[in-house]
Amino acid sequence: MRGAEPLVHCLTNSVVRQITADVLLAAGAAPAMVDHPDEAGDFAAVASGVLINVGNPTTEQIEGMHAAIASARDHGTPWVLDPVAVGGLALRTGLATGWLDHGPAAIRANASEIVALAGAGAGGRGVDSTHDVAVALAPALSLAERTGGIVAVTGPQDIVVTNSGGSTIATWVTSGHPLLQKVIGTGCALGAVTAAYLGAARTAGLPDHDAVVAAHAHVGAAGTAAGRVAAGPGLFAVAWLDALYTLTPEEIADTVTLLDASP
Amino acid sequence: MRGAEPLVHCLTNSVVRQITADVLLAAGAAPAMVDHPDEAGDFAAVASGVLINVGNPTTEQIEGMHAAIASARDHGTPWVLDPVAVGGLALRTGLATGWLDHGPAAIRANASEIVALAGAGAGGRGVDSTHDVAVALAPALSLAERTGGIVAVTGPQDIVVTNSGGSTIATWVTSGHPLLQKVIGTGCALGAVTAAYLGAARTAGLPDHDAVVAAHAHVGAAGTAAGRVAAGPGLFAVAWLDALYTLTPEEIADTVTLLDASP
Amino acid sequence: MRGAEPLVHCLTNSVVRQITADVLLAAGAAPAMVDHPDEAGDFAAVASGVLINVGNPTTEQIEGMHAAIASARDHGTPWVLDPVAVGGLALRTGLATGWLDHGPAAIRANASEIVALAGAGAGGRGVDSTHDVAVALAPALSLAERTGGIVAVTGPQDIVVTNSGGSTIATWVTSGHPLLQKVIGTGCALGAVTAAYLGAARTAGLPDHDAVVAAHAHVGAAGTAAGRVAAGPGLFAVAWLDALYTLTPEEIADTVTLLDASP
Repeated sequence: MRGAEPLVHCLTNSVVRQITADVLLAAGAAPAMVDHPDEAGDFAAVASGVLINVGNPTTEQIEGMHAAIASARDHGTPWVLDPVAVGGLALRTGLATGWLDHGPAAIRANASEIVALAGAGAGGRGVDSTHDVAVALAPALSLAERTGGIVAVTGPQDIVVTNSGGSTIATWVTSGHPLLQKVIGTGCALGAVTAAYLGAARTAGLPDHDAVVAAHAHVGAAGTAAGRVAAGPGLFAVAWLDALYTLTPEEIADTVTLLDASP
Repeated sequence: MRGAEPLVHCLTNSVVRQITADVLLAAGAAPAMVDHPDEAGDFAAVASGVLINVGNPTTEQIEGMHAAIASARDHGTPWVLDPVAVGGLALRTGLATGWLDHGPAAIRANASEIVALAGAGAGGRGVDSTHDVAVALAPALSLAERTGGIVAVTGPQDIVVTNSGGSTIATWVTSGHPLLQKVIGTGCALGAVTAAYLGAARTAGLPDHDAVVAAHAHVGAAGTAAGRVAAGPGLFAVAWLDALYTLTPEEIADTVTLLDASP
Repeated sequence: MRGAEPLVHCLTNSVVRQITADVLLAAGAAPAMVDHPDEAGDFAAVASGVLINVGNPTTEQIEGMHAAIASARDHGTPWVLDPVAVGGLALRTGLATGWLDHGPAAIRANASEIVALAGAGAGGRGVDSTHDVAVALAPALSLAERTGGIVAVTGPQDIVVTNSGGSTIATWVTSGHPLLQKVIGTGCALGAVTAAYLGAARTAGLPDHDAVVAAHAHVGAAGTAAGRVAAGPGLFAVAWLDALYTLTPEEIADTVTLLDASP
């Protein structure tokens, strides 16, 4: 990833733009936030990956998202959907549901959002999840089949599933730290890192599934490392950025447990 | 507060959304920024508390604020008004003045903003205050009488007043640290923490006045703690978040001086 | 600068508003973000300096920028143009090019943006620069002549040029640290600090050129100091803010190398 330095076009919510950009820089990618409808299509055409995060959208940004998704499809740019708080709020639920048919390379969300997006439940309260990750496995497989892309469910353990072309893969990723839940934007930034890894993997001819697993492993391992030195969320956020920057692939592999649970 | 984990709906300015969310998480609340007019009313109905902060509004966000305030009133959700830079700028002065008649549970501001909102002066320059807190006592009592809610004036010492139903209470809160003025959003985040404490207090059947005092004590005590370890605003902000997360109620009480100055 | 505490009106992109405000506070200025078209003109009239940063604009913010620039000109407030990603995206390229005739006191950008803004090339990819600073010298002199203001090109070495009224000055500023490129908003914040120094210098009757050099020296020296204690971007950002706050003018002068390269 660091060698490729993929350019990631983020259309994300206004709460987490700074930390999302800082995380991408620390992880070895190049961030750019381009939301205006007159610019978003042009930029998605040249980016390595695109993130669409529906947390706190504006009417104008939604137009930019439509333009970016259409351009990403036309130019073969992988795009990631983060359906923040879908299920609980009608506007974004309608948007995210409609975009399922536009070929997201990956969907990244918590369990409640995946359950809601798959039409199987009512969602959580905002960014919180009121469901266990395991409960979201069947809805995730259903979404992966419908979109043809990867679906990643983030929680105490993450699960990454592929279910297309007759192939079903499910990988459990165990890493992270509870303080990741006490810093805003860690999940949203993971969506951006997922877009970065997808962009780098496509360039290198590697599978999308492995890219999404690698993104979750990198972010989670950095959380584990930060949790070793920090007792509160302030220092944790600082140490997490540093670990995203300094961890080697070997250190990430030593920190994270991967489990193949393909059916 | 931490046990209740109140859900705080923030409609706040774009400069401080990230730190406001981080402060709420550190203090034990669950933040959600939902500004779109199509979503803000629905969300205010289910939130424990709502923050309306008029710093740097957009036309669309102002529509969302109107929707959130109306919904908060209808559903009995306590809402907090932070009249940033009111007095100096006409648009937000008109908005904040109009909302005085919509039952804010609390107003949190610096002395210049309270003086201007009460119609007694011309305001400061942006987020700075050019008035002493003591000068704002009479205007604060006037605003508290008019709205029926609490009014909190933030400064080197804070004062929290109630003046409704024949009852007048004034509490001085002495805590904090000068470096709080050198980190953007500490005052704005205090408005959000005030909404969180009001939400938790209402659930527990405790008085609003005590909730607002507790919010100021928690935020101020964390500032005092951070000031013990930090010489500049960078490390101070980190240590402040950590202290918001780790301070016990006993440590807060030991750090803060409360003085009943009811007339 | 710290004695003057200039009020800086920032119309900047939504990714970097928090860090821009924190940097201004740490450097001794007072930040205020006022984007609404109904307020931006009034505020630019009373500010000491104005920053116009075209990264990720909204339609409404663009109206605010037009109002702020017009008001700044009318009231003699120095304003700084940061043409983020100009060259690569049509909307902002049109805006920035049009504003060249509205008397910016300074333009601050990376080499690719300066090359593109001068009409000499196609720009970089987003905030990255694909050109060396030296390549931008001739385009920078051309822009400085056209606008009558200062042009600063930021890179591993910065160059600050003046080229008006028959006088040509070029100053190389050597300072900083590579980790400045791994924290979002360091360049954008430098634009804001430039507006702050210009405001303070005008009040004190000092030359604009010296103010822009001083801004780059202050920000760069803080980067050098932070690089001595930090190995990753998380701690670097914290230490950089602290150094902006604590460095004395003498320490800045000892850290930075200035070279007069006037032709």
